Amino acid sequence: MVAALKLDRLSVVLVSPHNPLNLGAAARAMSNFEFSSLRVVNPYDVAFRNARSAVGASEVLTSAVEHASVAEAVADCRLVVGTTAVRHRDIQHPLRRVEQGSRLIRKAMASGRVAILFGSEKVGLSNADLSHCHWLMRIPAYGDQISMNLGQAVAICLYELIRDGRAGAPEGKTPAPKKARTKRATAGDVERITGSLFEALQKSGYVRSNADAFIEEKVRRLVYRMSLDHDDADLWLGMLRQVLWKLRQE
Amino acid sequence: MVAALKLDRLSVVLVSPHNPLNLGAAARAMSNFEFSSLRVVNPYDVAFRNARSAVGASEVLTSAVEHASVAEAVADCRLVVGTTAVRHRDIQHPLRRVEQGSRLIRKAMASGRVAILFGSEKVGLSNADLSHCHWLMRIPAYGDQISMNLGQAVAICLYELIRDGRAGAPEGKTPAPKKARTKRATAGDVERITGSLFEALQKSGYVRSNADAFIEEKVRRLVYRMSLDHDDADLWLGMLRQVLWKLRQE
Repeated sequence: MVAALKLDRLSVVLVSPHNPLNLGAAARAMSNFEFSSLRVVNPYDVAFRNARSAVGASEVLTSAVEHASVAEAVADCRLVVGTTAVRHRDIQHPLRRVEQGSRLIRKAMASGRVAILFGSEKVGLSNADLSHCHWLMRIPAYGDQISMNLGQAVAICLYELIRDGRAGAPEGKTPAPKKARTKRATAGDVERITGSLFEALQKSGYVRSNADAFIEEKVRRLVYRMSLDHDDADLWLGMLRQVLWKLRQE
Repeated sequence: MVAALKLDRLSVVLVSPHNPLNLGAAARAMSNFEFSSLRVVNPYDVAFRNARSAVGASEVLTSAVEHASVAEAVADCRLVVGTTAVRHRDIQHPLRRVEQGSRLIRKAMASGRVAILFGSEKVGLSNADLSHCHWLMRIPAYGDQISMNLGQAVAICLYELIRDGRAGAPEGKTPAPKKARTKRATAGDVERITGSLFEALQKSGYVRSNADAFIEEKVRRLVYRMSLDHDDADLWLGMLRQVLWKLRQE
């Protein structure tokens, strides 16, 4: 099971990281577990440059790709998972412990690219960032006063992915074989559906202009909760485009 | 099982740590998982003092106990476990992966104190250090060229101890995600959404009249696949009705 995991199908996405040491530590954890795809959204420029040019910067770090937005960073991903400490936020998403979430991530990696998002050291992921996520994952820290170090959080999430479940299992039980499913919609599909639906809501007067950003996030989360597969995403997009075409004719 | 674990029975023993940042990171991981007993053997003095006096040093760090030797640091422990990357050493001890080792550590903590030893960042534990250990534990890093960051290694070992083994169980047994889903949409909700969506498709010209029944079934199945809860069903219905109202105005 573990051997078959395609590690290059996972992208670690760091959103607005500030501290070059944490950036380096995240990259190092990736190297330790042989993950290679690091994406950085809107990094604090100096820190990013420093970390990249540091002596001994890992290959993971030097080949990290910079993106201007979360939407762009996850566009090719079929599953997008946010990480959170869940201390002071109203959670709009299903929330899973990392032990359980990592199993779902492994499963999704069998058929497509998966992104795990980590927020900045200070504030974590914003609600706008979270609106791109299918669900959230948390590391069960007991003392929730103390936020987790970014490098350590990345290390633990990746470790869970390569961890040998059978080695720790009470008995020699192995997980049941998985059923084949059709491919999930990519984050890009979700974004296109969100955009079309949102435009239809604007054209029909459902959206008042003063609440646009808020409603757009709400619509994105709604679309994510549909857990669309690729075919259904196509179907929705076709329907919405036709409705939009009609709405635009007025 | 996890709840009964007496976390104060575990001592993390750092042998000759050099880098104050790593010392701080190890202490922070301990705080995150509510372990409290940190012992430091023969620290590089300046680093230890720096780390302890750093702004925001955790209670774990400020209450760390300094020992002159490994023997002294583990004197009251019933089980002593060394950590290693196992790259270039003749192993004289039983070696366990951390998944498996942590189970034995949990068991031992039920009856007495346990120490986990971590070596210095550069050279790891010496053979003399290892001679105090009952057995060794390693984190299964794939790319063994790159040694693991001390703070991350501590975080992963402690995480394994508090990890909920049951949370990783096969699909049928997993606890539901924490966000309480509201009630599922009723068949009546699905039917109303199907009806509104279908009408929107007719008004927009997406549906050709000769294939109506077929498309209506297709739309209904599509809506069922969304697995809507009651709140989302209401949201969809509101949006669709507004779009319909607009489409009807022509």
